[in-house]
This record gives sequence, C-alpha cells and structure tokens, in this order.
Amino acid sequence: MEKGRILLSVTGFNPQRWHELLAAERDVVLKPDSATDPSITYAVVWKQPPNILAKLPNLRVIFSIGAGVDHLFNDPGLPDVPIVRVVADNLARHMTEYVVWRVIDHHRQGALYRAQQQKKIWHEPLQRPAEDVSVGIMGLGQLGRAAARTLMGLGFRLNGWSRTEQAMEGVTTFHGEQGLIPFLNATDILVVLLPHTPATEGIISHDLLRHLRRRNALGGAVLINAGRGKLQKDADIVRALDDGTLKEASLDVFEVEPLPKTSPMWTHPKVFITPHAAATSDPEHLIPPMLKQMDAFERGEPLDHIVDRAAGY
Amino acid sequence: MEKGRILLSVTGFNPQRWHELLAAERDVVLKPDSATDPSITYAVVWKQPPNILAKLPNLRVIFSIGAGVDHLFNDPGLPDVPIVRVVADNLARHMTEYVVWRVIDHHRQGALYRAQQQKKIWHEPLQRPAEDVSVGIMGLGQLGRAAARTLMGLGFRLNGWSRTEQAMEGVTTFHGEQGLIPFLNATDILVVLLPHTPATEGIISHDLLRHLRRRNALGGAVLINAGRGKLQKDADIVRALDDGTLKEASLDVFEVEPLPKTSPMWTHPKVFITPHAAATSDPEHLIPPMLKQMDAFERGEPLDHIVDRAAGY
Ligand SMILES: NC(=O)c1ccc[n+]([C@@H]2O[C@H](COP(=O)([O-])OP(=O)(O)OC[C@H]3O[C@@H](n4cnc5c(N)ncnc54)[C@H](OP(=O)(O)O)[C@@H]3O)[C@@H](O)[C@H]2O)c1
Ligand SMILES: NC(=O)c1ccc[n+]([C@@H]2O[C@H](COP(=O)([O-])OP(=O)(O)OC[C@H]3O[C@@H](n4cnc5c(N)ncnc54)[C@H](OP(=O)(O)O)[C@@H]3O)[C@@H](O)[C@H]2O)c1
Repeated sequence: MEKGRILLSVTGFNPQRWHELLAAERDVVLKPDSATDPSITYAVVWKQPPNILAKLPNLRVIFSIGAGVDHLFNDPGLPDVPIVRVVADNLARHMTEYVVWRVIDHHRQGALYRAQQQKKIWHEPLQRPAEDVSVGIMGLGQLGRAAARTLMGLGFRLNGWSRTEQAMEGVTTFHGEQGLIPFLNATDILVVLLPHTPATEGIISHDLLRHLRRRNALGGAVLINAGRGKLQKDADIVRALDDGTLKEASLDVFEVEPLPKTSPMWTHPKVFITPHAAATSDPEHLIPPMLKQMDAFERGEPLDHIVDRAAGY
Repeated sequence: MEKGRILLSVTGFNPQRWHELLAAERDVVLKPDSATDPSITYAVVWKQPPNILAKLPNLRVIFSIGAGVDHLFNDPGLPDVPIVRVVADNLARHMTEYVVWRVIDHHRQGALYRAQQQKKIWHEPLQRPAEDVSVGIMGLGQLGRAAARTLMGLGFRLNGWSRTEQAMEGVTTFHGEQGLIPFLNATDILVVLLPHTPATEGIISHDLLRHLRRRNALGGAVLINAGRGKLQKDADIVRALDDGTLKEASLDVFEVEPLPKTSPMWTHPKVFITPHAAATSDPEHLIPPMLKQMDAFERGEPLDHIVDRAAGY
C-alpha cells in the first residue's frame, strides 16, 4: 500500500504547525477536491465541517486531534470508518499538571491566602493534611489514572469512578450508576475527566454535587472540571457555590465556549477559570505517533486507541 | 536509666497539644524550677528564652521543634549537648505540597489567568512544557530531595545545590561556592530550602538573582523561598521584581516575621505571600518519633539527626 493522502480539517484554530509536520512525510490537503475526492485515505480532524467526510470513497481512518471525540460526533455525515483518538504521555502529563495545580490550590487555601494578602493579614489558617482529603476522579481513563498516580504520591486519598469495573492500586474504585452515590459520598474534591457522551451529558448537576462529602468546617466540597463543558450545568454549579454545596470550583470547560461575557462565573469569587487550556494537544508530540500509526496501518498492522462507537468514546 | 523529664520551652505559639502528647508518656514541665533544676533531662524547644538551658546540670539532649535549628542558636547560653532536629516524612510531604503548588502556579501562569478572569478575557497564552523548565533546588537536603522527586515526576528538569557534593538520580547537582553560578545559570525557577546559618545569611540578593536564567519571553526567572527569611534580602527581591530580573516570587518567609504592614511586598502584584506556613510542624506526627528517640537514648542507642554545630545545621 502506498503512502495515503491526508485531509487535515480543523475549525477554531490555525492548523499551520500540524500541517507542516504532517506534510513533512505525506501529502496533505486542507480541503477535499470535491465531496467524492478519491485521493483521501486519512482524515485528521478537530470539529470538521459537517458532511465533509461523508462521501469520500477511499477514506480509511479518522484521527481525532485530541483525546475527546465528541467534536466528531456532532457531524451527521460521519462515515463508518475507524476513529483513532489521542493517547500520549505528553498529554497526560500536561493534564496531570493542571489537576495537581488545582487540587493543591484548593487544598492549601490559595484563595484565602490571596484575600489575606490584599488585606495585609498574617494568619495561618487551620490546614488539613493531604491524607485526610479524598480526591475523587470521575473518569478513570488515560488522563484520570495519570492524575491519580501523582496525587497519590502527594499523600491524598483517591477514589475513581468509571463505566466498567476498573482496578488501580491505591485507588478505591466505583463504577456504573450504582457506584456513583457511594463514590460521591466518599469524595471531598471531585475531579471530572469524563468524556462527553450521551450518557454523561449534564451529569454534573446540583443534584449530583449535593452528594459530595463536606466533612468539616475547613472543608466544603470542591469541583474541578477539565473534561468537557457539556458534562456540566453551569447554572447548577453557580447555585451549588452560592448555597454552600460547593466551597470552590476550578473550571477549564463550560457549556458554551468561549464563556459568554454575561456568565456569572467570570466574576464569581469562588470560581477559577481557564479557557479550555488544561491539556492542549501539542502537534510536536502528537503528530509523530499519528504518522507511525499510518505507516503501521499500511503494513497491515492493527490501529491503536480506536474509539468504541457504541460507548461514544 | 529511668524515664527522663522534659522541659518544653516554646515562644510564639501555644504548645498545648505538644504538651499533652509528651505528657502522655513522660513528666513534662514548661519552666525549670530554677536555673539549675537538676530534674531535667531533655529540652524540647522552639525559640526558647535566652539562657534558660545554660545551667541545667543534667540536660542531656535538646530536641528542636522544626527542621531548622537557627532559632536555637540565637541563645547565647546554649549548652553543649547534642541537638536533634526534626526529620519526618510528614514534614517533607507537607513541604513538597507547598513547593509543587508554587512551582506549578508560576509555571502554568496562575497570576495571568486570575488577571484575565477579572477582565473576562478568554485567552490561552503560550505555555512552555515542564520539560523545558529547570527548577533549581537550593539546599538539596531532606526537604529539597523530597520536593525534587515529585517535581521530576511532573516532568520538570531538576538542578540541586548543596554545601558538600551530593548525587541524586535525575538531578544535575552542583555544590559549594564554585558551583553556585553554574547552578543559577541553568535554573529558571529557584526554590530555596537552605537552612539559615552564618554561611547562608542574606545569600538571596539581587546580585545572586541576576545569574538566574531568563530564557525567553514566556519565561523570566521565578523565586520561591520556603527556607528562612534571613536567607534573603527583602529589598533586593523587590528591586529584582521591579527591574525584570525576576518575573514573580512566592515567599513563605521574610527578614522580619510577621511581615511588617509597611513592607512593599504585601501589595506587590508579582509576590505571593504565605505566613511561614509552608510546612508547619505537626505534633501528632513529630512527637511519637521524638519519644521513641528518648526511649532509644535511654537504652544506650545513638541519636538520629544530630545537628552539626560547626556547619550550623
Ligand atoms: N480540558 C482539556 O484540555 C482536555 C484535554 C484532553 C482531554 N480532555 C477530556 O478528557 C476526557 C478523558 O480523556 P481520556 O483520554 O482519559 O479518556 P479515556 O481513557 O477514554 O477515559 C474515559 C474514562 O471515563 C469513563 N467513562 C466514560 N463514560 C462513562 C460513563 N457513562 N459512566 C462512567 N464512566 C464513564 C471511562 O470508563 P471505562 O474505564 O469503564 O471505559 C474511563 O474511565 C476526554 O474525553 C476529553 O473530553 C480535556
Ligand atoms: N517554611 C517552613 O515552613 C519550613 C519548614 C521546615 C523547614 N524549613 C527550612 O528548611 C530548611 C531545610 O530543611 P532540611 O530538613 O531539608 O535540611 P537538611 O536536610 O539539613 O538540608 C539542608 C541542605 O542545605 C545545604 N546547605 C547547608 N548549608 C549550605 C551552604 N552554606 N551552601 C550550600 N548548601 C548548603 C545542605 O548541604 P549538604 O547536603 O552538603 O549538607 C543540604 O543539602 C530548614 O533548615 C528550615 O530552615 C522551613
């Protein structure tokens, strides 16, 4: 099999560097010649325009730029070929950095210290040790496990929740609907690293958050969402912060992105916002394994990290 | 040898919990009966009043509440008995938490994101990966090594500087005066975990800070001091922040503590202040090994973690 041609179809950011790196080894186009362009073997995509892939007769594999593939499924004309998603140490490390950053900033009372500094207050508040705090990772997959590993090393207790039964040393695991409430009841700091699928949409609601543990005066539950905005109900989070169900939240993702200027989140004193930047896909690290997968595929070897369409991730 | 009596001598905080835990196993007094009280075998101290220990005829060991022992040496009447300092996993974990928190907050541009949020700006700045950033640990001892280990796991490059030659896997090590400039030249984020001794007093000066690497527009050097305030010259740090030698600083310690209201640090936009709270000594974790050491000493076994008086730490 000769080296297949790539369609690079991206909206929302400039794909220049992705283009350069792919084009160093293969033919790359940014648009098909026509809806039925026969020259295209692979599609490398992020939020591709609807139906652009629907009728390409020789398309063999779709590669998602990013670990999540929800952006693909918005396309009603998504053809039935294998979808490969990003799994990379580099991405996991970047996400771990974000999660550890947010967990420690809440745990070590960063907001309180910043407020004290503004008022020139020299005061050491009571501080719980990490071993008294349980971090619950919702979505114990590639990214969730990497974050759990580092948090464990820092001394936190770890819970994990997944769709199917999973085991991980040092982590108390729960799964499925029947495992959800017990998982929440044992969690002080909730870290959401789920994919957005029909089953997970809107799952982070006020009703869910009120099951979190708020064990003592120091505590109060904390929400960190670095999964997807569609997992959460923004308004419910604001309500949970205002009625004390949540103490603080760090949110990297939102129902609508960019977060509208009218959102009360922007100025909420208990919310820390980043612009969907927890773990950005880095072409320098992600393109080489993608090109390797294409080479392997052409030698007849199986693809790695294929998305399960029925499960939606 | 029967169970020796303890003098618990503390200023600056309420030693109630330390008292309770020590008294559960041994006789404890908060003051000697007289300057020559013969009943006292051990002193457990934090900033003891001067000369209180000078003439106790049967004092055998001084235990420092805290890893640093500079507070002891301020006493002109410090008797010549062994001084044992705190070395504990619990303390190292607590310090690692602080160091990782501050390193990631600077690395991931926490101050910028907080400023953007205030203005409702949705913008992802350029972000260096951890593997492009070198953290230099000044003082590669019990606490420095623990922090280095976790930072390495997060992907940062590590340098270490010590008095005597030290090796640690994955860490580029430097030592002594001749190693200092090369160490600084290779460091983006400087973490100070030195003890305060005559040799280290005032070492963190403008002259030292200007040797730090400021590799690119994204970077700019960062200072994190969780050692002791007397290691630094507060005014030099402010100058370094104002002239761009430093991009940001996180300071847990200051020349004078509590930090005076008149200090420009309080309102400096590039400084993050905590009130000497990076790793507070926790009696629940530190008293049991202290009591064990007393028992072992009475069985004729050697003491651990004895301070080297000539070196001053
Ligand atoms: N904010 C950012 O910058 C950023 C960057 C990258 C990725 N992400 C997000 O992170 C997500 C996770 O990535 P990943 O690589 O870790 O994915 P992954 O390896 O597929 O892991 C997904 C985890 O979620 C669990 N899960 C899925 N559906 C569930 C359900 N209905 N109920 C309970 N658990 C469910 C899975 O359970 P099983 O173990 O049973 O399969 C698995 O543990 C991505 O989908 C993406 O949305 C965000
Ligand atoms: N802010 C807080 O809450 C807090 C809490 C606890 C401790 N501390 C501070 O942290 C300090 C370090 O504690 P530790 O347990 O890690 O001490 P440690 O084990 O004694 O380590 C001290 C390190 O500093 C190095 N050092 C000492 N003098 C030096 C000099 N003149 N030049 C170069 N390097 C020198 C030592 O070099 P060698 O390896 O060659 O001996 C060693 O690597 C304490 O002394 C205390 O001041 C602060």
